[in-house]
Amino acid sequence: MKANPHFYPIILAGGRGTRFWPLSRKRRAKQLLALDGKQTMIQQTVARLTPMAAPSRFWVITNDDLRPAILRQLPRLPAKQVIAEPAGRNTAPAIGLAAFLLLRHDPDAVLGLFPSDHVIADPAAYRATLAKGIEIAAAGDSIVVLGIRPTRPETGYGYIEAGSPQDDAPDHHGFLRVRRFTEKPDLATARQFLDAGNYFWNSGMFLWRADTLANALREHLPNTAPFLEKIAAAYGTRKFADTFRKLYPKCENISIDYAVLEPRSAKGESQSRIFCLPSDFGWNDLGSWTALHEHHIAKAKAPEGSLISAAGSFALNAKNNYVHVLDKFVALVGVSNLVIVETEDALLITTLDQSQDVGKVVKHLDEKKLKKLV
Amino acid sequence: MKANPHFYPIILAGGRGTRFWPLSRKRRAKQLLALDGKQTMIQQTVARLTPMAAPSRFWVITNDDLRPAILRQLPRLPAKQVIAEPAGRNTAPAIGLAAFLLLRHDPDAVLGLFPSDHVIADPAAYRATLAKGIEIAAAGDSIVVLGIRPTRPETGYGYIEAGSPQDDAPDHHGFLRVRRFTEKPDLATARQFLDAGNYFWNSGMFLWRADTLANALREHLPNTAPFLEKIAAAYGTRKFADTFRKLYPKCENISIDYAVLEPRSAKGESQSRIFCLPSDFGWNDLGSWTALHEHHIAKAKAPEGSLISAAGSFALNAKNNYVHVLDKFVALVGVSNLVIVETEDALLITTLDQSQDVGKVVKHLDEKKLKKLV
Repeated sequence: MKANPHFYPIILAGGRGTRFWPLSRKRRAKQLLALDGKQTMIQQTVARLTPMAAPSRFWVITNDDLRPAILRQLPRLPAKQVIAEPAGRNTAPAIGLAAFLLLRHDPDAVLGLFPSDHVIADPAAYRATLAKGIEIAAAGDSIVVLGIRPTRPETGYGYIEAGSPQDDAPDHHGFLRVRRFTEKPDLATARQFLDAGNYFWNSGMFLWRADTLANALREHLPNTAPFLEKIAAAYGTRKFADTFRKLYPKCENISIDYAVLEPRSAKGESQSRIFCLPSDFGWNDLGSWTALHEHHIAKAKAPEGSLISAAGSFALNAKNNYVHVLDKFVALVGVSNLVIVETEDALLITTLDQSQDVGKVVKHLDEKKLKKLV
Repeated sequence: MKANPHFYPIILAGGRGTRFWPLSRKRRAKQLLALDGKQTMIQQTVARLTPMAAPSRFWVITNDDLRPAILRQLPRLPAKQVIAEPAGRNTAPAIGLAAFLLLRHDPDAVLGLFPSDHVIADPAAYRATLAKGIEIAAAGDSIVVLGIRPTRPETGYGYIEAGSPQDDAPDHHGFLRVRRFTEKPDLATARQFLDAGNYFWNSGMFLWRADTLANALREHLPNTAPFLEKIAAAYGTRKFADTFRKLYPKCENISIDYAVLEPRSAKGESQSRIFCLPSDFGWNDLGSWTALHEHHIAKAKAPEGSLISAAGSFALNAKNNYVHVLDKFVALVGVSNLVIVETEDALLITTLDQSQDVGKVVKHLDEKKLKKLV
């Protein structure tokens, strides 16, 4: 695999990941946690891309709360390319800013947009898939989205409805035209998607040229694009911080899906130039403690549960519990399907069925202004 | 109420109370815990008896592991009357030793035998009942046992089957002759006991004259009684510790129920001279975390659960959980009927249904020689 010298990974690392409370906090979001192995999620994200791009070509978009920890966790990345948004504005302005920044730096730049908190079981297959996508994205005005083959009727993800194979050129073999992006479906719809065979999970991973993306922003967000261009023009000067702080909050608060991909795909599959690259490299977004539990069990092939405690444990008539306790002996008697997570200042007890509601605990803590706990 | 100057409370405090692990430990058994209020169980036991006997008349039978903490918790009791058994030999030798000790000190001594880890909701009613029992016990060779009116078909207690009222003397009004002591029944039998109306829970609280008890020991444990007499004879001399250590382990390892009460009651209700004093003063032996939970709920009239955490909590779709966590914020999401207890070095998660099995955790820790945790 020959690395493309114009490929720039853009790591999106501004999320809070509140569903991993109490481990995740405002200054220690999900992507900064070592949920799966010794490296943190963002370290894994960078590590698996490093064979394709030198550290100097990485950019990270995050916020002021998380930037210090990211710099500590990723010391090889250029600090000035770890950018803290002055205000959260969802993915469209973040991605757009990256496009305008790179366009000034390298007119042939190809951006890869990567969430910072996902797991990839097969990094080699992942890189092979990416290389294929980069090649197509680099060649012209295509937008490539990595679509994950669904394995269950998941209602928590957005789906990509794929159309006909884009096989009009030999190098496009295996790509599918995107017919439509759909929001999170209900269970019945998700089952239909799974059965239909031409639906894919939207991984949030995209590949496109910086100029293609810049043009898309100018077309679909005509009010926001000029702010982003001005911020990009100030980058590297003394005025940057000030310009960024003043103009960025004026950008529209909108996702790249809503802003660009959905209206673009509405033009019809033959016009949109959006291509789905069917992907199968063991992707998991680890959306909750339950998802992490299932991931651990699948990896370790230990159906009886996962128990993380450095101080030992004893289970009596207990099974399929997720326990994350670092320095206490844990005794489980007659309990099953629980999620138990302890930190220095908090203890969470929930069930595998209801762990997706843990974000509501953080909402409560926010409302009560219990700042030390969020 | 005129206090009887010959009444001596004997507090039995050698138990481990493993079902309150991880709070209870070898050196901090259940009776040394403040499970219900600010005072510990043994402090409450002594406090509620103090109006009936000066601190100098209390004796405590315990073991070497617990004696230091008991002396700290009960500084007003004479230290030499807090006796550590060299080896656990169940209740018969412990009680017998107390009888022989007191007999040498006061020929008219009346012993009250009291577990050290029970709750009494109405101490005034308790003392009034005791006063009545002491009067009868002091008068002759009767054994008085406080029988608790059962309120549910409890399978965890021994029962007393009461016979005819012992009303042949005016001062015996309200006492019932004991027909039989029965072991822990199964549920169907317990329901029959409850319906029958003449069954009482064996509270483990007894009143009898020291000479009556000494004679009973000589009759029913002829091999053990001489050892106890020799130990008692050495009390207060330089030979005591040595004699105690050598002879006490030779005593039979047997409960007073098996050794004396059951064979005595087998003589028939008209011969046994064992009387049940029906008692109704809000007794609760707090036999498990679940019993403690129910006690807290009954006291606080808070059916939604009991939660002990100094650092706050948040419950979402959660009810009827017992939580004992001292310095962490606790979040419960979608869980019910759990018991959650945390200490500095251990975390227990069980259910209200299965908390009686917590003793098995301690058994496991004993077997694994995890001494710091027991």
